Amino acid sequence: MTSSAPPAATVGILGGGQLARMLAEAGHPLGLAFRVVDPKPGASASRVTEQVVADYDSTDALAALADCDVVTCDFENVPADALAALEARVPVRPSARALAAAQDRWVEKNRFQALDMATAEFARVDSRPELLEAIDRIGLPAVLKTRRMGYDGKGQFVLKTAEDLEPAWQALGDRPLILEQWVPFDHECSITVVRGTDGAKRFYPLTRTWHADGILRLAVAPCPAADRLRAEAERMAGALADDLDYVGCLTLELFADGDRLLANEFAPRAHNSAHWTIEGARCSQFENHLRAVCGWPLGDPGLREGISVMFNFIGDLPDRSVWLAVDGLAWHDYGKTARSGRKVGHATLSAPDVGSLKALRAGLDGELSATVREALDSILS
Amino acid sequence: MTSSAPPAATVGILGGGQLARMLAEAGHPLGLAFRVVDPKPGASASRVTEQVVADYDSTDALAALADCDVVTCDFENVPADALAALEARVPVRPSARALAAAQDRWVEKNRFQALDMATAEFARVDSRPELLEAIDRIGLPAVLKTRRMGYDGKGQFVLKTAEDLEPAWQALGDRPLILEQWVPFDHECSITVVRGTDGAKRFYPLTRTWHADGILRLAVAPCPAADRLRAEAERMAGALADDLDYVGCLTLELFADGDRLLANEFAPRAHNSAHWTIEGARCSQFENHLRAVCGWPLGDPGLREGISVMFNFIGDLPDRSVWLAVDGLAWHDYGKTARSGRKVGHATLSAPDVGSLKALRAGLDGELSATVREALDSILS
Repeated sequence: MTSSAPPAATVGILGGGQLARMLAEAGHPLGLAFRVVDPKPGASASRVTEQVVADYDSTDALAALADCDVVTCDFENVPADALAALEARVPVRPSARALAAAQDRWVEKNRFQALDMATAEFARVDSRPELLEAIDRIGLPAVLKTRRMGYDGKGQFVLKTAEDLEPAWQALGDRPLILEQWVPFDHECSITVVRGTDGAKRFYPLTRTWHADGILRLAVAPCPAADRLRAEAERMAGALADDLDYVGCLTLELFADGDRLLANEFAPRAHNSAHWTIEGARCSQFENHLRAVCGWPLGDPGLREGISVMFNFIGDLPDRSVWLAVDGLAWHDYGKTARSGRKVGHATLSAPDVGSLKALRAGLDGELSATVREALDSILS
Repeated sequence: MTSSAPPAATVGILGGGQLARMLAEAGHPLGLAFRVVDPKPGASASRVTEQVVADYDSTDALAALADCDVVTCDFENVPADALAALEARVPVRPSARALAAAQDRWVEKNRFQALDMATAEFARVDSRPELLEAIDRIGLPAVLKTRRMGYDGKGQFVLKTAEDLEPAWQALGDRPLILEQWVPFDHECSITVVRGTDGAKRFYPLTRTWHADGILRLAVAPCPAADRLRAEAERMAGALADDLDYVGCLTLELFADGDRLLANEFAPRAHNSAHWTIEGARCSQFENHLRAVCGWPLGDPGLREGISVMFNFIGDLPDRSVWLAVDGLAWHDYGKTARSGRKVGHATLSAPDVGSLKALRAGLDGELSATVREALDSILS
């Protein structure tokens, strides 16, 4: 005798980090069940749902995921073979093809150009002569990046002068690389689109972002410059999602310079810059990703609050009692042990308008780094 | 090697129904872990957190809960002995004393009067002569109720004429009873207060409610008559919470007649009439209950959306694809098998204002019962 009904659907997730955790948190009210595969025991998502401890390309992983109703990913660098094997047995959304498109920066940038999305200049670098040739053409400063497996600023070097070449080449030269022009820009921003199995698309408001050491620190939505940038951002993200026959949420990161937008990279999954949507939007990126991959109607990505600010917690969590005392603040603890450079949580502060947000934010004055405080002031003043 | 940190706290819950489930859903982002005790395997909350299958007063239950950081309940009729044993070993919030105050309608109503909270007339009924005497004094119509264990209209009979006495007495006469005057009223409403370990109190907006067959069907927040009723509702709920040295969320159900409010009953736990707070308030009743019982700062109970309407799903879930297609609608599936009279889920439709809500609600026209449609029209027109 049990009082429980079968779940509305069981969603398998490759990767058990905080994105998988927040997918499960968003899906539980919808009646969804989750099965997360991650080789590391005690992954962030294991606190809120079932984790199968297995390598992504193992037969254990395949067996655990094959009888789910649909499979999705919480990171883009899932081994291609593992996905191909899965796709033969269960719907994988977004598809292996869509993930592959984000796994290689060279392929990604070429797709951007083919879709008439402006980018910084870039060049493929497979040898030292090719690097010199690329610098000759593109000039300095430039950024040398691995084509694969980079995230949060890992696997990249900024080349300001000729002296920076040698250490960068020593560190990265054994792998396929890409050199990207270092473009001056006013600010960074990103846009999240959700696309359904029927091709329907809905766009979240443009979000302004600030990074330090390659890691997102702060996001504000809506981006103050949204009025003049939004249409082009939506055109780009929409073209990309359609081209990939994408299902789920996809975030496109952009550089804004005046009225011009340059596509930087995209993430075929839930994205840190859209965590504010949990409280600030009428349907979060996590819920909309699930609605899409389950083939359900998409939710409203519009604002629920006038303005939302997301603070990333890197390394360790700040003093909870100070943060929770601020009205309108939502706290997200990923249950991860503290470690330098690690994303261990975030908080979102939402308010009906900029004035109210300024007043609330005063409660955090002693808690914010100079960089974050300055960034926030530039928006709120 | 594990990547997970200890939980911010482990909360034990007596009862594993949908209220325990929604507590866990609200607590996961906060980094809380949960252990739910329920004698029925596969309880609603077991889908989202650990369930210990055990009777509430068993040594297994005691052992499972004693090493939690704090224990709370998802229903008020927890055996008093079980709570007393627990309180000797772990903080129980709200306390056994607060729960006891809600377990007996006679005790409850006397407390209301002592706190200067108006009530309908009532009389204790322990014998047939006492029933006749009570009717003589209070008059008909009246409602005969068991003093203990009643919920969702169970254990009560409306007495309209003298003919109704005999069947009611046959059904209930073996238990301690209370006779309550049947009061004419304009509408029902309820107010939820959260009170912290330090005695701080915050009030949710007054909510208008509609019941049928003793079960809540529809809730609208804020209650249109809130301007003239709110102060007295807050005074009553606040006095009650203070008197009980209450910790957590408490909901007081009220009858409104003109400018007059009569206290009907209170629930020492999260309450169905405040489910709309998950999306419609800046901090939900579930999160605030957890903040309170953990001794954390209380969250903002203010409105995040201008108006929220909650529809209860009784018996079975309606067609998900129709409901999810409505913008601004949040879906809550409790994972329970369908059964007549059972609460299996709810949906909350939120909008910035009444006009927008009317437009959105059109998508549900074919889905609502005549009673609910009529109730909603009386608010939205």
